[in-house]
Amino acid sequence: MRIKLINPNTTQRMTAAMGQCARALVAPGTEVVAVSPPMGPPSIEGYYDEALATPGLLAEIEAGERDGFDGYVIACFGDPGLYAARELARGPVVGIAEAAMHAASVLAPGFSVVTTLARTRGMAWHLAERYGMTRFCRNVRAIDVAVLELDEPGSSARLAIVDECRRALDEDGADAIVLGCAGMTTLCAQIEDALAVPVVDGVTAAVKWVEGLVALRLVTAKRGEFARPLPKRYDGEFARFSPAGAATDPASDPPGAPGARPLRFG
Amino acid sequence: MRIKLINPNTTQRMTAAMGQCARALVAPGTEVVAVSPPMGPPSIEGYYDEALATPGLLAEIEAGERDGFDGYVIACFGDPGLYAARELARGPVVGIAEAAMHAASVLAPGFSVVTTLARTRGMAWHLAERYGMTRFCRNVRAIDVAVLELDEPGSSARLAIVDECRRALDEDGADAIVLGCAGMTTLCAQIEDALAVPVVDGVTAAVKWVEGLVALRLVTAKRGEFARPLPKRYDGEFARFSPAGAATDPASDPPGAPGARPLRFG
Amino acid sequence: MRIKLINPNTTQRMTAAMGQCARALVAPGTEVVAVSPPMGPPSIEGYYDEALATPGLLAEIEAGERDGFDGYVIACFGDPGLYAARELARGPVVGIAEAAMHAASVLAPGFSVVTTLARTRGMAWHLAERYGMTRFCRNVRAIDVAVLELDEPGSSARLAIVDECRRALDEDGADAIVLGCAGMTTLCAQIEDALAVPVVDGVTAAVKWVEGLVALRLVTAKRGEFARPLPKRYDGEFARFSPAGAATDPASDPPGAPGARPLRFG
Amino acid sequence: MRIKLINPNTTQRMTAAMGQCARALVAPGTEVVAVSPPMGPPSIEGYYDEALATPGLLAEIEAGERDGFDGYVIACFGDPGLYAARELARGPVVGIAEAAMHAASVLAPGFSVVTTLARTRGMAWHLAERYGMTRFCRNVRAIDVAVLELDEPGSSARLAIVDECRRALDEDGADAIVLGCAGMTTLCAQIEDALAVPVVDGVTAAVKWVEGLVALRLVTAKRGEFARPLPKRYDGEFARFSPAGAATDPASDPPGAPGARPLRFG
Amino acid sequence: MRIKLINPNTTQRMTAAMGQCARALVAPGTEVVAVSPPMGPPSIEGYYDEALATPGLLAEIEAGERDGFDGYVIACFGDPGLYAARELARGPVVGIAEAAMHAASVLAPGFSVVTTLARTRGMAWHLAERYGMTRFCRNVRAIDVAVLELDEPGSSARLAIVDECRRALDEDGADAIVLGCAGMTTLCAQIEDALAVPVVDGVTAAVKWVEGLVALRLVTAKRGEFARPLPKRYDGEFARFSPAGAATDPASDPPGAPGARPLRFG
Amino acid sequence: MRIKLINPNTTQRMTAAMGQCARALVAPGTEVVAVSPPMGPPSIEGYYDEALATPGLLAEIEAGERDGFDGYVIACFGDPGLYAARELARGPVVGIAEAAMHAASVLAPGFSVVTTLARTRGMAWHLAERYGMTRFCRNVRAIDVAVLELDEPGSSARLAIVDECRRALDEDGADAIVLGCAGMTTLCAQIEDALAVPVVDGVTAAVKWVEGLVALRLVTAKRGEFARPLPKRYDGEFARFSPAGAATDPASDPPGAPGARPLRFG
Repeated sequence: MRIKLINPNTTQRMTAAMGQCARALVAPGTEVVAVSPPMGPPSIEGYYDEALATPGLLAEIEAGERDGFDGYVIACFGDPGLYAARELARGPVVGIAEAAMHAASVLAPGFSVVTTLARTRGMAWHLAERYGMTRFCRNVRAIDVAVLELDEPGSSARLAIVDECRRALDEDGADAIVLGCAGMTTLCAQIEDALAVPVVDGVTAAVKWVEGLVALRLVTAKRGEFARPLPKRYDGEFARFSPAGAATDPASDPPGAPGARPLRFG
Repeated sequence: MRIKLINPNTTQRMTAAMGQCARALVAPGTEVVAVSPPMGPPSIEGYYDEALATPGLLAEIEAGERDGFDGYVIACFGDPGLYAARELARGPVVGIAEAAMHAASVLAPGFSVVTTLARTRGMAWHLAERYGMTRFCRNVRAIDVAVLELDEPGSSARLAIVDECRRALDEDGADAIVLGCAGMTTLCAQIEDALAVPVVDGVTAAVKWVEGLVALRLVTAKRGEFARPLPKRYDGEFARFSPAGAATDPASDPPGAPGARPLRFG
Repeated sequence: MRIKLINPNTTQRMTAAMGQCARALVAPGTEVVAVSPPMGPPSIEGYYDEALATPGLLAEIEAGERDGFDGYVIACFGDPGLYAARELARGPVVGIAEAAMHAASVLAPGFSVVTTLARTRGMAWHLAERYGMTRFCRNVRAIDVAVLELDEPGSSARLAIVDECRRALDEDGADAIVLGCAGMTTLCAQIEDALAVPVVDGVTAAVKWVEGLVALRLVTAKRGEFARPLPKRYDGEFARFSPAGAATDPASDPPGAPGARPLRFG
Repeated sequence: MRIKLINPNTTQRMTAAMGQCARALVAPGTEVVAVSPPMGPPSIEGYYDEALATPGLLAEIEAGERDGFDGYVIACFGDPGLYAARELARGPVVGIAEAAMHAASVLAPGFSVVTTLARTRGMAWHLAERYGMTRFCRNVRAIDVAVLELDEPGSSARLAIVDECRRALDEDGADAIVLGCAGMTTLCAQIEDALAVPVVDGVTAAVKWVEGLVALRLVTAKRGEFARPLPKRYDGEFARFSPAGAATDPASDPPGAPGARPLRFG
Repeated sequence: MRIKLINPNTTQRMTAAMGQCARALVAPGTEVVAVSPPMGPPSIEGYYDEALATPGLLAEIEAGERDGFDGYVIACFGDPGLYAARELARGPVVGIAEAAMHAASVLAPGFSVVTTLARTRGMAWHLAERYGMTRFCRNVRAIDVAVLELDEPGSSARLAIVDECRRALDEDGADAIVLGCAGMTTLCAQIEDALAVPVVDGVTAAVKWVEGLVALRLVTAKRGEFARPLPKRYDGEFARFSPAGAATDPASDPPGAPGARPLRFG
Repeated sequence: MRIKLINPNTTQRMTAAMGQCARALVAPGTEVVAVSPPMGPPSIEGYYDEALATPGLLAEIEAGERDGFDGYVIACFGDPGLYAARELARGPVVGIAEAAMHAASVLAPGFSVVTTLARTRGMAWHLAERYGMTRFCRNVRAIDVAVLELDEPGSSARLAIVDECRRALDEDGADAIVLGCAGMTTLCAQIEDALAVPVVDGVTAAVKWVEGLVALRLVTAKRGEFARPLPKRYDGEFARFSPAGAATDPASDPPGAPGARPLRFG
């Protein structure tokens, strides 16, 4: 089985770390390929970043379909482009916020999310609602550290996360923690050791859930809302994103364009 | 006052029609500029279309900020990019689904939405939830006519809409209708005449609401979730979308690139 | 276009101030008439006050229908008699809590209401629920100042409101403020200056919303729940309120009764 | 113990019938006094009727307080003025929709309401929400018979109700019936006999619930929202409704006014 | 009328005290029989205790049916086995959490529950949701005193409860208190005296509610979900619990087994 | 890793079939042990059956803890005893309704459940609510076939299920199916072949989810609600169920009692 783990931001260091964590946990015979799109924001810290990360992410899903992947993980805690990705993919597509919240909901009566920036707390609440998880989500807390500072050498982020998790356990009535950023994956074990409650990292949780769903031969429903995008020709520089079946505009997507990876759909 | 009405799809014919309807309704002194982005899908009929329409839409918002617009309307019934747009804009930003549902909720105990394609009904329900309108939304119905066929000469779309509206009134317990597609704007008056209940078109409802909010000198909250995007440099071909403050990559966004309108932020 | 702004309490000083604020904001050609009923409570600070303010309010709506008004604003933050008013009116009827909450919901991720008396906080929550706004309403706070003290010379109410608003922004996760009393209309600009976040006054928000809805030629749905009251003859001293079509009892409503304004329906 | 059962409409025939049904069910030592206000609508079939029935109802509550009643029942299925009545009363006040829905919720997994006019179905849904009963309320159905026709000699109302109840059991997934009109009280036993499921009449359910609460020495909370109305002087012809503590205006409420019962508060 | 009050734990001292409180409040002609099952936990302080208390409770219900009881009260604040009991019983079955929450919801805008152990707070929230009472339940607080210490001589439990109730009134916005443990029944009057707000004890509230429902001749719906259990033969040592109609296994349920009371169903 | 799959009913034929299905899907190194309790109902078709199946189930969990199992699946669609089981277990415990609904929620916009008996539909709805899945659950349908008839030779159950699934897809707006009975596990592949939409069987879904959670080293939160039961001595014939730490009563649990498996806790 082959799972494609897509970090929607362009920071390869994070992508590589996630891939490594995931590969350590999958069953024999499961291959995990971790990628980032070639264009878009290096970190996702708001709705605008998210909107501009999504085209690159979707191109990676579409490429994954051509390459025969069995399932996908969207490895940013905002789960950007999740439903659009489901339109493209045959196999399961799971977001890391989705996987982490669902997992935490079966391990504890309630969890708190600890994320990076306060401005993204609303995004996490919207996702909790979308997934039916508001009844388990006790709070969404932020440490106000930028995503890319999480793993800088000498960063105090780990300590800040542990402190905020402690407050969550003391003040929120939470009995488990959901880590609210893909960049926290590598810190998960250390945080759990410090806290003695379940600490769920979405990246690994999503990879294992997708692995399980694929093993069960379950796929994305291709009726209704998640049917393939209707074929049509997109205009201008986005012609290359035209859903399969529509001719693309060669002028706007010259072969060998700088920095381009094979995004052409269909 | 100047309001920018952005049709997120690239079909100029629709854009022009919406602008005309809107201009007929605004107060003296209100200017409405209707635009479409130069790139992206010609119609939005699913999550993937929506995701690829959003970058162009957001570039139009950012351009609007440079041009000093007082408020914005996002003129597609999925309200794509609404929260990202609010991060960019000083003034109010209203989506047409948002405006139509809010208006209908003060005119009738409940409304039904009549839209084009069945696959987009879930999107409308998600928006109703997001806006707090599920308690008023009795049903979301589709006529299964493609967006671009709505105003084709000889199209039977108007009759199909009227029929579906009648079913909504008879079967759903709805006492008002929300038209679920920007392409229905020009048909609104005819449909209302046929039905004798309030029929709300989101394009005009949104323009009038934004006009009212601007008159009240109300703006988008720039604290917290809708603060300006953090400045950072985006990678690759999306460097041109980098939020203000970050240097853009000149190589990937050459001046005078074919089909480009001034998208550079900051 | 003619809009009738009805202050359901009998304090003419407040009525006049609201009218002045509203007239400063409407488009050329829009006339705003501000009135109070001749009988009932001078301020509305609980359910009982509200119940006794409603008959006078409804008489003003019915009189407005005879006078050909195009739309109505109910200018008390409890939105008393809103649905009964919609039964009477052809045009739109909007309450000020309704207008303020809807407007705030498109400007900020969440708002707090700041009102006068703690005992009315539950009323505001009930309205938020009724309008679908609980998801945006972060808190309802009270300064515990009586309505009629708000604009007394030398009142410290404005400072108390600003202080409470600051607490709302700091403690509630709100990014906008809704003023929870019609008597705060005249203070709105000053409060907003002090806070640098959107501050929504319902009186002006409602007037502009009704103006917009009337411009769109939208009316109240007269099917179902908001159909005209069934004609019947009321008994005793309330015979004068009998819905149109029923003969009134002349004995109980003598012409020239003290303090009476023309309330007779039909 | 003394319980005041208030029919908020002025139709004494209904009031007498309700009193008779109630008195047959109370324990020895419980006295039930059934009254109607002297003014207002003879039947309540919409929001406007309800608003104009409320002042008379509240005057009866206030009179009841002076007369030392231990608890109250508001005997109209819209539960008009319930919260205002709680501001006035020391003892418990229960509405008949409230009592019926609560009772049905402990007897069956779900119930349907069968009421008179379709236009009042929304009112019943609002009450279900207010009381937390939406999760039990499967449907609200109407037979479209006017309230005052229910007990006319030769009326086919009983058969229509039984038919509609049968549809509720067959189509709604309901396993119990709530009768949605005080005028159906006298028909309850016959309907239950025909259906073999629990059929709850709110009038008797409310009387027994109030009787139980009074036996438990439970009273209405007089802190916060249900505290006594603030004393103030009402204006004009409603001066007589001024809450206790405020001087009333003798001119507007002359002793011995035609049809008046002792409404003066305080 | 005969009401069976079942304390699902085996502590007879509590059972006797509850019976005494209940008998003091019922009408002439109402007999209250208070029992505990012969086996199971002596106190219920978690889901496991609850699960093991339920078989004994259900056996008491089934025995009650054979003995012709008219209604039942389940006298543990977790309302264990409520729906299973409704499958068995003809008459009404009410849980004490259910009765207390419903009663409090008609006496005050909101209540807080004060219970014994923190670990059971989630159970109370689940019940509030199940009964539609979350909108009234402001908080669930615990004093962290074990159930069986409540009435120990010299226990400070009463003072701890009063203190916690005061905090609920001050901090939660609650205007009434629900006592969250059957063991608090005997303390109810003292607590209410100390607080001057309604304090609802579920045991007595449930007994009076059942008494009222039986007086109204209302029964449990025997269609659908609460129909009698399907007859079948249970295996092994639980054969004695086999629902009526199935032969029991005499070997596993020897006559005169130690501590056995007549549990055989049917 | 060792997973204990517990069928809470006593029908070994079903248990063996589930074990076989599960073992075919787990990774190398995962052992699945499938068991039934020795006592209780042979099928679970209501709340009473469920209550009497739970003690045996919990004894199997406790025995599993002594035997060092890493995780548990409760293999009955009512997920009986789930929270009590979490009190006992260190590792994850997942119910099959829980696993199936969560899985379906990431594969399709909405699913319908197809179960055996109509009387259990309410149970499924309660679970959907408990897990946050009501927003995905479009309907719960029953074929009205008894659980033990599902796999009888010549049974038409499979056809009945397929027919009901088709109706769900046509009428409910569902795009995936959840099989609502553990006894349908063996039919899952055939049903999916007939329908061409995702069909989720909870038994295998739960086994794979638990396997994934254990691989992630995630455990049940042992703070708060799911802490070990407090040690105490249970009375009478249930003394053997006393939570660890309390002495058991040897008289009531003689060694070698007929049909007994080692249930003694601690």
